[in-house]
Amino acid sequence: SVSLETEKTSDGVEKTAGKSIYMISDGTGWTVEHSVNAALGQFEHCLVDRGCAVNTHLFSGIDDVEQLMEIIKQAAKEGAMVAYTLADPSMAESAEQACNIWGIPSTDILGPITEAIASHLGVSPSGLPRGASGRNFPLSDEYFKRIEAIEFTIKQDDGALPKNLINADIVLAGVSRTGKTPLSIYLAQKGYKVANVPIVMGVEMPKTLFQVDPEKVFGLTVNSVVLQAIRRARAKSLGFGAEVRSNYSEMDYVREELEFAGRIFAQNPAWPVIEVTGKAIEETAAVVLRLYHDRKNRCSMPRISKRY
Amino acid sequence: SVSLETEKTSDGVEKTAGKSIYMISDGTGWTVEHSVNAALGQFEHCLVDRGCAVNTHLFSGIDDVEQLMEIIKQAAKEGAMVAYTLADPSMAESAEQACNIWGIPSTDILGPITEAIASHLGVSPSGLPRGASGRNFPLSDEYFKRIEAIEFTIKQDDGALPKNLINADIVLAGVSRTGKTPLSIYLAQKGYKVANVPIVMGVEMPKTLFQVDPEKVFGLTVNSVVLQAIRRARAKSLGFGAEVRSNYSEMDYVREELEFAGRIFAQNPAWPVIEVTGKAIEETAAVVLRLYHDRKNRCSMPRISKRY
Ligand SMILES: Nc1ncnc2c1ncn2[C@@H]1O[C@H](COP(=O)(O)O)[C@@H](O)[C@H]1O
Ligand SMILES: Nc1ncnc2c1ncn2[C@@H]1O[C@H](COP(=O)(O)O)[C@@H](O)[C@H]1O
Ligand SMILES: [Mg+2]
Ligand SMILES: [Mg+2]
Repeated sequence: SVSLETEKTSDGVEKTAGKSIYMISDGTGWTVEHSVNAALGQFEHCLVDRGCAVNTHLFSGIDDVEQLMEIIKQAAKEGAMVAYTLADPSMAESAEQACNIWGIPSTDILGPITEAIASHLGVSPSGLPRGASGRNFPLSDEYFKRIEAIEFTIKQDDGALPKNLINADIVLAGVSRTGKTPLSIYLAQKGYKVANVPIVMGVEMPKTLFQVDPEKVFGLTVNSVVLQAIRRARAKSLGFGAEVRSNYSEMDYVREELEFAGRIFAQNPAWPVIEVTGKAIEETAAVVLRLYHDRKNRCSMPRISKRY
Repeated sequence: SVSLETEKTSDGVEKTAGKSIYMISDGTGWTVEHSVNAALGQFEHCLVDRGCAVNTHLFSGIDDVEQLMEIIKQAAKEGAMVAYTLADPSMAESAEQACNIWGIPSTDILGPITEAIASHLGVSPSGLPRGASGRNFPLSDEYFKRIEAIEFTIKQDDGALPKNLINADIVLAGVSRTGKTPLSIYLAQKGYKVANVPIVMGVEMPKTLFQVDPEKVFGLTVNSVVLQAIRRARAKSLGFGAEVRSNYSEMDYVREELEFAGRIFAQNPAWPVIEVTGKAIEETAAVVLRLYHDRKNRCSMPRISKRY
């Protein structure tokens, strides 16, 4: 998240470089932000080389029509487009009309899927934004379960407390810089209790790792050239001395350590091994969870099912 | 996330209770899942009392048309509706057509916003799903920054290493069970280095807390009755003995500790104090980040701006 850059035009007026997207929500704004981010993935070819710079502006907690109109007016001035999630149908309609009047493109992110679900269920949407008074937020089991998962996962980072591996839903094993920690945290946010165990050449793995259900252990592996590059950057940022660095990030060592990990994985064929090269954390998470949920249900199309 | 329940109908056929929503993505599926979850918030009134049970099924990494057709056929059999994110326009079209043929409602979650952005930027979307070969995933500064934020935040949990508060972007202070840990982790995932510091009655706060920029410190407070209920549940799950429990979760103690925290907040009027009662973690995160980003830009409409 780089903050907004501005530049002066020839007439001295401060002007924002690049096109703007205004994102408006009566809630947190994370849904519209997530959707816009995914859509922007379709324009990476020109975002990367700055062929088309984009500025996003997120306005959250917008629950009265005056604020809404002020933001849309500002969007019009800036030549921005608008994407919004507004639960109250009269707010959503006001947004659409104002955008039409000002001649700016607008997209209702949530209206279409909400309407589709409404007619599928045969139930009308409440029209109440999250956090609206009158809604009461239940301290659900789900809520406590997620918090417990996060606290468990933090405590189990980096091989800590191996006796607790038995209590984990998912155990990740891999050499340093395969992304175990951020992946653990990502999964914890989704409610899974995760432990991660580093594989270090010549260091024995905790015995408990081989005692837990092998179906919950996942090996992570990565291309050696990419791993070396990541470790070099890491060693530099940690200010490792030259001797440590050479061991940690030199190619021979990196290769041997990956082979060491590979032998452990080969000895435990029930552990799925996931190649993380080129994958974002959330992509690896999707692979882990697809395999995790498919254990029960091997023959059919892999899926993650939930009940509400 | 409760797993799928099934029930037998009178004719002995196993039948899924409740309506189903099939979610299909060529990527991770997190975008369609996020949007469907937000939309389901509009039906909480009937989900809570099980008036309308909903089963969601997430199919990720669906990048060939045969798999796609198999899933849609299954959706038709189950009387499900379909929501999808498919970057390849021919896949999206196939999904739409197949749903029409089978007579099931379908919603394209990403098409409309992608088209709107395309015409706003004057650039065509790539049509390539994330993770498609040919796309190369850059190990961007953003990526490393986020991992560093997560690792920093884990190390700084629960008042650890107070000398590092100076390096945090955001510092959270509050009594036990105000949600400091999950909030810290949520913000870390968004790239912020967060430290959290517990307030415990009679225990002195670390000196460094008062030396850092007060604009980056946020106090958390909560209704005493709700806090007591949360602490009771917590004490039970940790198996605290009766004496510890009485101190930790008894009403007088809870009230006094909140007052103790309130006095610290009053002595530091530059710290915003956020009421977390009834707020989900992501809602508190939205408030924190709105305030955090508004510091630079106080007069205009609060917003979170990013550049791509
Ligand atoms: N639990 C919920 N109850 C009601 N509406 C919700 C809920 N969660 C999200 N929404 C709505 O969904 C949209 C997106 O939410 P948000 O991601 O918080 O911006 C907003 O219009 C919210 O008001
Ligand atoms: N970085 C990206 N590049 C290209 N497409 C993306 C990117 N991120 C997400 N998408 C697409 O956006 C949709 C939602 O992605 P996901 O949340 O991974 O299911 C899918 O159609 C993805 O292919
Ligand atoms: Mg780690
Ligand atoms: Mg904590």
